[in-house]
Amino acid sequence: VLDAETLRDTLARIPPQVLLDMVEAAFVAFSEGLAVLPAVGEMSFDDPRGDVHIKYGYLRGGDRYVVKVASGFYDNPSRGLPVSTGLMMLFSQQTGRLQALMLDDGLLTRVRTAIAGALAAKYLAPKEISCIGIVGTGTQARLQLEWLRHVTPCRQAMVWGRDDSKALAYAKELCGKGFDVDVATNLQTLGNHCNLIVTTTPSREPVLLASHVRQGTHITAVGADTPDKQEIDSNIIRNAQCVVADSRSQCAKRGEIAKALQQKRVDIASVIELGAIASGRIPGRQSQTDITVADLTGLAVQDLAIASAVLDTLY
Amino acid sequence: VLDAETLRDTLARIPPQVLLDMVEAAFVAFSEGLAVLPAVGEMSFDDPRGDVHIKYGYLRGGDRYVVKVASGFYDNPSRGLPVSTGLMMLFSQQTGRLQALMLDDGLLTRVRTAIAGALAAKYLAPKEISCIGIVGTGTQARLQLEWLRHVTPCRQAMVWGRDDSKALAYAKELCGKGFDVDVATNLQTLGNHCNLIVTTTPSREPVLLASHVRQGTHITAVGADTPDKQEIDSNIIRNAQCVVADSRSQCAKRGEIAKALQQKRVDIASVIELGAIASGRIPGRQSQTDITVADLTGLAVQDLAIASAVLDTLY
Repeated sequence: VLDAETLRDTLARIPPQVLLDMVEAAFVAFSEGLAVLPAVGEMSFDDPRGDVHIKYGYLRGGDRYVVKVASGFYDNPSRGLPVSTGLMMLFSQQTGRLQALMLDDGLLTRVRTAIAGALAAKYLAPKEISCIGIVGTGTQARLQLEWLRHVTPCRQAMVWGRDDSKALAYAKELCGKGFDVDVATNLQTLGNHCNLIVTTTPSREPVLLASHVRQGTHITAVGADTPDKQEIDSNIIRNAQCVVADSRSQCAKRGEIAKALQQKRVDIASVIELGAIASGRIPGRQSQTDITVADLTGLAVQDLAIASAVLDTLY
Repeated sequence: VLDAETLRDTLARIPPQVLLDMVEAAFVAFSEGLAVLPAVGEMSFDDPRGDVHIKYGYLRGGDRYVVKVASGFYDNPSRGLPVSTGLMMLFSQQTGRLQALMLDDGLLTRVRTAIAGALAAKYLAPKEISCIGIVGTGTQARLQLEWLRHVTPCRQAMVWGRDDSKALAYAKELCGKGFDVDVATNLQTLGNHCNLIVTTTPSREPVLLASHVRQGTHITAVGADTPDKQEIDSNIIRNAQCVVADSRSQCAKRGEIAKALQQKRVDIASVIELGAIASGRIPGRQSQTDITVADLTGLAVQDLAIASAVLDTLY
């Protein structure tokens, strides 16, 4: 049983490039059909409002399988508790026995999500990034920008949030980490300045519209991980020359691509998996004027990769 | 985090009648539509051969939800390890946070399964039980007989197993626990003597045949919990006046009733849920000459009930 502090300390000892490579390898293995990832298990609660997701899976021929239980209970802040919590378990593929229980409170999920965002930018962002646009001001908004440092030299950023004071706090904090961060008072300004945009909100309605996005922009959407969440206008997906999913089958049911499919803005056959681009099998961005979109809903193979990295570092 | 020893000791402190009542209440609540039980999550492994089941759910308006990970890895005995392992987690329905991790190695599952068998007998067995027939000689075969003591005064039993020496060991052990246990060399003998039969094998082909079963017998089948396992001939289900499932929807996909449905030996509309009988809403056995069958595939509400009983006893 590993507590949050041990996990945080251990994670900090792993070079970022190692984690990027491991998560990238997980996406490649997944897209090559080496992963077994059953559909996400779900439960919803009404009073108080909450939801639970169970993600699980493994790579064929690997050592371990992962089971992750993650929840969001939206009244938690009124009790002085964070909304999200979670734990991961690693089990042996040889014996089925528990190898590690990681009481990480969602830390590993947050980091592997940020790593996936960095990988999407690595393969899809335009060559010259003028400014990084971050939509949202929460923990994931912070982590996304921090992890982008490993895939681009750009240190110019712009943040937008519904709450200006949170956007200001975000800008201040990330300025302390080597970025030059401005606060955008509206998304049109952010879209005009930025050609790499990451959306990190829990919105149920589009925040970033097609009119905000200029030619040559890459957008990574990480906030929408359920069938009812949506951050970006489906017309952005319609306009994009390249639409990328972490998992085609999962994104057909959850997130931005699911919404775009419902609204007939995209054909699932044209959606490319991140792992197929990372392996070089399918090209990603083909022109510097293309609009590209990556929709990341989160895969258990990412959980498996990061949890394994931590466990292997510890023992 | 509670280890197997703590759990075993705590469970032993709870009066059997309390556990019976709690599991019965769970079946009733389930059949009244108060439970949320998503479909069982599954993963299979080829090398070595293994499977993993994830059961989870909750009762509306309750305090907790349960997530259970249980596995069987069939090469484990060659490594000196038991085939089955498992753990249960209880989480708060108020905050989503983990309340207890029970590293029970399947103990709680084995006991709640035996309790369900006792409840099936309580509602479905004939008034006069001549002799209890146990098919199989494993841990579940032991537990089933031990728990039947709480619902019938009958102490005559007969056991059948593929391996005579294991059947003998079983008979000796249970004789030490107040039963008078004979070994049946074939299932016809067992069927002739017994009018309450419990099947507890992991068989993939019918072991107990219709010709083995006499009028007035109740059969509880607990071994088949996956779509490919089957212990009892579908004709037994065809001949039965009353066919009972722990969950109609789950038994339509797994276990004896699923096989009988495939072979058109039963109509799902005629299958009754154990909870509906326990609540008195639907009668169970209507005549002492009826054949009745209960197919128990295992529900997360049973896990929730027993794990909650243990946790409430501890704290």
